[in-house]
Amino acid sequence: MRGLETAVYFATLNKGKYAEVAEVATEFGVRLKPLRRGKMEIQSDDLREIASFAAKEACVATLRPVVADDSGFFVHALGGFPGPYSAYVFRTIGNNGILRLLRSAGNRAASFQAAVAFCKPNAEPICFSGTVNGAVVRRPKGIRGFGFDPIFMPNEGDGRTFAEMSAKEKNRFSHRGRAFRKLFEWLTM
Amino acid sequence: MRGLETAVYFATLNKGKYAEVAEVATEFGVRLKPLRRGKMEIQSDDLREIASFAAKEACVATLRPVVADDSGFFVHALGGFPGPYSAYVFRTIGNNGILRLLRSAGNRAASFQAAVAFCKPNAEPICFSGTVNGAVVRRPKGIRGFGFDPIFMPNEGDGRTFAEMSAKEKNRFSHRGRAFRKLFEWLTM
Repeated sequence: MRGLETAVYFATLNKGKYAEVAEVATEFGVRLKPLRRGKMEIQSDDLREIASFAAKEACVATLRPVVADDSGFFVHALGGFPGPYSAYVFRTIGNNGILRLLRSAGNRAASFQAAVAFCKPNAEPICFSGTVNGAVVRRPKGIRGFGFDPIFMPNEGDGRTFAEMSAKEKNRFSHRGRAFRKLFEWLTM
Repeated sequence: MRGLETAVYFATLNKGKYAEVAEVATEFGVRLKPLRRGKMEIQSDDLREIASFAAKEACVATLRPVVADDSGFFVHALGGFPGPYSAYVFRTIGNNGILRLLRSAGNRAASFQAAVAFCKPNAEPICFSGTVNGAVVRRPKGIRGFGFDPIFMPNEGDGRTFAEMSAKEKNRFSHRGRAFRKLFEWLTM
């Protein structure tokens, strides 16, 4: 293991996200602990830069090995919008806003992307990405999940949206799960 | 003057913006200098928080009295969208995206808003705001200015959009000019 005698602290206040990532950590035998501290989010078009800044800032402030993540929904015909600002865009114009923007678009390709950064004291952060490709459907379907899940259908699925899948099914494709698996593989190499 | 024996350093790399603000500073006899350093922008729904963080971060890093600003375009029927993320939204979905989102909206009210924060070493930032109210027109008009100027018609104007006005005319209503005037008044009180 890469000096992983201590636990890794996950900088998130989102309990659902913590539980999801803790499950993946267990598969790899990584000791994950909650940092119980919000992450500092900078404005950037690059998820990796946002996650890396958050991990380093929390690591410098707490002197612990920290992992921080960021994710977004990227619609190709909209130049990647809403991208890193997905949470804000969901709160303001929502799924109907995305559908309206795409009404006359021929290309409905989209992806969920995640970046996960790990930072140890006195070191620079290292970052891993995960992506799930799919398409924006014409009408919201399903009531599970959150955010843009009801309008996103992954290419690898069976035609259902993320909001029509159980958490376990969705996690098979999950951009966040993929990024964390890469990190945990690297940590336990 | 409030301890303004020294110059005030404006944290921006945008030369057009610097020139605009320098003109206002001259009216008040404030010595403005460029900090020649980008500002750090955090993610927040609140322009004042973004400007205050940027001013404090630059002040701590340079040990100089620093002013930093942030501004956004707020469309009422869209829950304030695009707000603090206006630059990103303009780069991705642009004016046509806003017009599409508003196609069936009865209420086309919108505003440009600015926040300007000033921070001296060993002090907390103080922040001032400026707003210009208006409406989103149905088709882009005019070729001056930048960003959402071609679709914004200020209430106090004569029916032209910001992009149909000279820089001087636009500055009479300008959200940024208003916020900086408040700061410079306070500094020279």
